[in-house]
Parts: sequence; C-alpha cells; structure tokens
Amino acid sequence: MFEVPPSYNEADSYVYASIKPVLRIEAAGLDECLHRILAEDIVSLKNTPPFNRATMDGYAIRAKDTVGAAADSPKAFEIIDYLYAGGVSKKYISENECIHITTGAKIPDGADSVVVAEKTGIENGRLCLYEPVNYGENIEAEGRDIKKGRVLLKQGAFLTPAKIGVVAAQGISHLKIFEKPKIAIISNGEELAEVGEILKDGQIYDVNSYIVGSIVKDNGCLPLKFGIVGDNPQQIKSVIEEALKVSDFVFISGGSSKGDKDYMSEILQKLGKVPAFKAKAANGKSGMLIIAEGKPVLGTPGFPSSCLINACVLLVPALRKMAQIPSIYNMSITAKMSEKIDFSKNITGRFLAVKIEGERAFPIENDNKGLANIAKADGYILLNDETAVIEEGTAVSVNLF
Amino acid sequence: MFEVPPSYNEADSYVYASIKPVLRIEAAGLDECLHRILAEDIVSLKNTPPFNRATMDGYAIRAKDTVGAAADSPKAFEIIDYLYAGGVSKKYISENECIHITTGAKIPDGADSVVVAEKTGIENGRLCLYEPVNYGENIEAEGRDIKKGRVLLKQGAFLTPAKIGVVAAQGISHLKIFEKPKIAIISNGEELAEVGEILKDGQIYDVNSYIVGSIVKDNGCLPLKFGIVGDNPQQIKSVIEEALKVSDFVFISGGSSKGDKDYMSEILQKLGKVPAFKAKAANGKSGMLIIAEGKPVLGTPGFPSSCLINACVLLVPALRKMAQIPSIYNMSITAKMSEKIDFSKNITGRFLAVKIEGERAFPIENDNKGLANIAKADGYILLNDETAVIEEGTAVSVNLF
Repeated sequence: MFEVPPSYNEADSYVYASIKPVLRIEAAGLDECLHRILAEDIVSLKNTPPFNRATMDGYAIRAKDTVGAAADSPKAFEIIDYLYAGGVSKKYISENECIHITTGAKIPDGADSVVVAEKTGIENGRLCLYEPVNYGENIEAEGRDIKKGRVLLKQGAFLTPAKIGVVAAQGISHLKIFEKPKIAIISNGEELAEVGEILKDGQIYDVNSYIVGSIVKDNGCLPLKFGIVGDNPQQIKSVIEEALKVSDFVFISGGSSKGDKDYMSEILQKLGKVPAFKAKAANGKSGMLIIAEGKPVLGTPGFPSSCLINACVLLVPALRKMAQIPSIYNMSITAKMSEKIDFSKNITGRFLAVKIEGERAFPIENDNKGLANIAKADGYILLNDETAVIEEGTAVSVNLF
Repeated sequence: MFEVPPSYNEADSYVYASIKPVLRIEAAGLDECLHRILAEDIVSLKNTPPFNRATMDGYAIRAKDTVGAAADSPKAFEIIDYLYAGGVSKKYISENECIHITTGAKIPDGADSVVVAEKTGIENGRLCLYEPVNYGENIEAEGRDIKKGRVLLKQGAFLTPAKIGVVAAQGISHLKIFEKPKIAIISNGEELAEVGEILKDGQIYDVNSYIVGSIVKDNGCLPLKFGIVGDNPQQIKSVIEEALKVSDFVFISGGSSKGDKDYMSEILQKLGKVPAFKAKAANGKSGMLIIAEGKPVLGTPGFPSSCLINACVLLVPALRKMAQIPSIYNMSITAKMSEKIDFSKNITGRFLAVKIEGERAFPIENDNKGLANIAKADGYILLNDETAVIEEGTAVSVNLF
C-alpha cells in the first residue's frame, strides 16, 4: 500500500491497468445481442441478395431484343409469365419474350434487364416498348451487398442495429457474444438494514447496493448482490472470498474510515497479493483497490454520496473495460459551465455533479455524505488533477448518470 | 395525404406532434427502475439520517462539561458504555460521563457532541480531554440530508442511480413507473423468410424486424414482433388491426413502392382517419404515417438500409417522446467532419451514416438498399433541410447507433 495516497488520476491508471476484459463466451439469440460484444468472426455464408433481383416493378427482358425500339417503331414482346416477389418462374425468356415482375422478385432465367412498367404499353395482350433498355437496368446483382466468404463482422464488434441486421440477412439466429462481467456488490456495516424491512433504532437502509447495482447494469455488467455483511472481520473476509469465486470484480462499501470496528483496510491488505492503493477522494474519504486471486477488489466509504463518487470515478472505467464497450459509447454530452468553479474549494475533489439546463451545466452542491442533493444532478464532470479552475462558459464534457 | 411529400423536417414535426407519452403505470422493484420514468411523487416518509449520528469514531459527550479543559488542566470523564454503529445505548449521559462511539452510530441520550479519539487520552480507565469540544461537533443531525414530508422526486423523473439511492434511503422497495410503450413490428413481403429457416429460391430473410426491434429496445420501448405478412391486402389490414389493439405504435416495413402487389399505401390510407403523409426520404423511397384508432402507424420501404434510415429519422424521436426520455439522454457525441459533404449529392437525403475515428466523423457510402456498408457506421448525422454543405472540420452532432 502506498504511504501517500495517489491522486485520482494515478488511481484511475492503476485500476485501469489491472483490469482485463472478461473473455468468457455465451450464445444468445439475435434479439438479445444489441450493444453486446461479438465473440466470433462472422463470415458470410451466402451472397446478399442471394439472387439477381428486380429493383422496380416492370418486365424482365433481354436487352439485346430491345435495340432499335423507338416511339415511331415500337417493339412487341410476348408476356409469358407473371412473377411476384417471393415467387420463381419456371419459364425461360427467349427472343422477344418477357415476364411481368415486381420489385424484389428473382430475375427469371434468360432475362438480363428490367424495363419499368411506366415506359411500356400493352397492345393486344403484348408488351410494347418505345425505347431500348440498357443491359442490367433495374437489377440488383446477386452478392452486390454482401459477397459469400467475406468477413462481415470481427470478434470484438459492438453490435449496433445495422450489425444485427447484417447477421439477420445471413439467416444467422444466434451469435457467440462475450458474457457480461460479473460484479459482486457487498455492503458492510452493522447499522445497515435491507430496503423493505422495518428499521430498528440505530439502523439505516443499505442504499449503496442499489446505487452501485444500477451503475453496474448501466455499464454493460451484471450485478451480483451479496447484501449486507456486519462488522465481524472473519465474516467480511469470507464473504469477499465467496464473492471472488463467482465474480470478476468485488465492490464493497463501508468500513473504510479508521475506527474500532473498522477492519476493512486490514482485511483488504491481507487478501491482496499485489500492491494496493488508497485513492484520495473527497473530504479525506478514499477508495482502496487490491488484487486478490487475480481479481480486483474495490473498497469505498459507506456514505452513499462518497460511494457514488468512487463508483463513478474508479468503478465505471473498470466496468467498461471489462465489458469492452467502445469509448465513444460513453454516455456524455457537452455543456457550458454556468459559473466559475474553483476546484481547490470543491470538497469532492475532481468530481463535480451538475444539472443540465439548456446548454449549461450548473454545479450541484454536495456534502459528500447525503444523497438528496446529488440526486438532482443529471451527470458529473471529471477533472484532470491539473485543472484548478473552470471559467464560466467553458465547454465541459458531462458524463450522464 | 399530401400531394407533395413534405420534407423530413416537416415529417418529423408531424410525427412528433401526433405522438403522446404512454401513461399506463406499472409497479417495479427498485432494481428494475434504472432509466425508467417515475409515475408518482415520492414524499419522504422519514428523516435521513433517521437519528443524530456520529460522523467520526470517538466519544459522545456533553459539550458544556468540556469547558475549561486544557493541556495543563485536563478534564476526566467516566466511560459508561461502548457503542457501535447499528447498536443503541440504554444509558443516559450525565455530567462528566461519556460513551465510546463509532462512526454511524446513534448519539446516545444526553450527549450533544462527539470528540474524536485522537484528541483524547485514557488514564485509570477514564477519558482525559485536553481541550474543549464544540457543541454539535462530529454529529450529523437527524434529517440533515432529507427531511420528512419533503417531495423527494416528482412524477416524470428519469431514474438515475442517485435517484434510486434516494428512494432506497427511504426504505421503499417498489416504485410506480410508466410502462414501456409497446411497438408492433410487422414485415411485409411475400419473399420474406424468418431468420433461422432455410431460404427457398426467390426468398430473402426478414432483416427489418431485427433492426427495428433493436432500435425500439434502445429507445426505452418494448418491441412486439408480429413477424412476416404476405402481400394479401386483407391479411395486411387484419394484422395491422390486430397490432393496433395491443400496441401504442405500429411499424410496418415493405410494400411502400408502387407496384402490382403493393397495397400498403392504399391500406394505410383506408385505415387512417386523419391526414397521413408520405415523407420524401432517400432515393425516392419514403415513409408514410397515418393515425388509426388514435394510434400512429408508420410504413417504410422494405430495403433494410432504407428501413433503418426511416426508423432513425421518423421512429426514434417518436419512441423517445412516448417513453418520456429526456432529450439530454440521447446517445450522441460531437465530432469533426472529416471532409466536405455536399448534401445535394447525398442520396439518403438529410441522413448521413458516419464512422468515428478519433475526433473525426467519416462519411459511410450508402446505396440505400444494402446493409453491409451502413453496418460499418457508428452513428449518423441528421441535417436540417436548410443545410446544403458541411465543410471539412465542422463540428457535428453524431447520434450513436
């Protein structure tokens, strides 16, 4: 453990460097794959479209038969079949023959072009053409969109609606995707009661597992709630060990200030086999990270606001790296700072909760203990350690809750 | 129906004006409420914290007893109890008495201050104080964060992790939230086959229900998939009528170009009781909206890329209005245009798919039919109808897929 707590920036780098993407694979139906990460390469099994098809309603025809057609010398064609999208004609188009065809239908054998209905006439049941047709006109060639054998999507792709569409176009109904990283959430404190229970005298509700559970879900991971653990060090240790067995990351709040019944620091340092750190956060409160059994364990103070801030600053980047979410998909907006902010006077360090009104970001007062104020915020600004002051009107990037 | 198709901007306004938020209410456990919309006011039932509590480890004491304590004349106090967070002392603190207390514990009766352990000594089992304590020191007063009877959250609030935390702090385990709007998705076309089936000759897969289903989910709504319907007008009409009974919005793709078996426009106009419109989209293809049984029905072309564009331009704003998602929670980022774009030459109208690399947005070529190219895009830019050209380096807002 560092004697001098590192800055939040250093802490970030430390947490970030110790985090690895979770590479376990699961199969999922295509409907469940939105914004998940593809765990396989997708090679196209067939051409898309799978056949030459008409892009307009009209008549499938041989272009060479139309040469010389003109307003004053129309050419006539036998209509040998009527073909709709989804259907197939068994007829072969020979000289001066045509087949009526609708958009999306497969071009019948023998034809090489489609003439649109508007450019034709019908006389005595035969098609009349008043101008020649270009070879290939109004036909989308087989494989024009996707050629068979092409790598359509690579492992690691973030699955957007269009990417899911490309998979569907191949007829593939299931994909291999990376599992959501599992985040164990533990709340420590003898004074905590489960939400829904009746409070006994001296108790408060466990708020943090709800806050952190929401943050975990919102960042592509799966919360595993381990509930409340009291101040018994042996019990805390065994719950963390249990959590390490089934999760990829353990988050524990509470018990991180020095006190008679506060064994968290000692427990974490005993569990951790590699250097741990305590990140200086707001108001002297800090988060602590260790690596145990090769997995990160992050401890934060129990005050809900302090827990929330630590989760935003230290946990969120870790979650997104584990879940492999591309950085552009961070939920953030740009806004203009409503007033000058002096961060040397900001008790929550480099974290500033803000409310968005129009194009402006208004700072939310925060005492680092309660929640009522911070709950008014729409998001937060994270500052570089170097930033001391933000002037009024400066464009800032706001991470949305 | 308008004789002259309105611009996409006009179409937007039209769709938007005809859309109403869905106000059906459901109850949900707090863990399921992230980013949902609160359907009730939450009034605090109790003070938070629910009692005066210690914010440091130390000794609960009466401030007036400490007056006059100094390094050269320490004052001594009887330690009458040991109190931990979550516990309650049955003892009352009288003159020159104190109780050992840890952070978060309820202040025992009689005490009005907490002196931190570091400022004290122990002599013959008694506490020694070398300086006086201020009244109220190291105590967080009952109700300091939240006062009983206060409106904590209002109906319509977008539930962020901190807002969920505020509810949890009240011990409330379930909330009334607005139901997700239900969006019926229908794919029309005799040539369509379900993903997972073997294609017959002349068939292609139904891609659109996957694309639109993803978009619906990603914008706070619930997709109801009605699958594929063939080109039989009576069948199309009855599926739409069925969908209108159970959904808030009907989306149907395919059959919107004029053709022999293309009955969509006629069907929609027969169903619609208020003026419908056809919005001019890309490449002559267009979306059509009618209001039937008081509910919007949006028809788009069947080409996947065209369906996707219409869904982004016309459906997404409708979904977000129905679901009451605040506009700042649109997933968008700001990027710089990689090159000059002349929209008079852009076949997809005011829609431009882009790929993000670093800070720059690169345009993705799009033929308005296939999907392979558009699937490379990270998001899209929507232009005002007035915008003709975007110069290289211009900052643009990219809606992420």
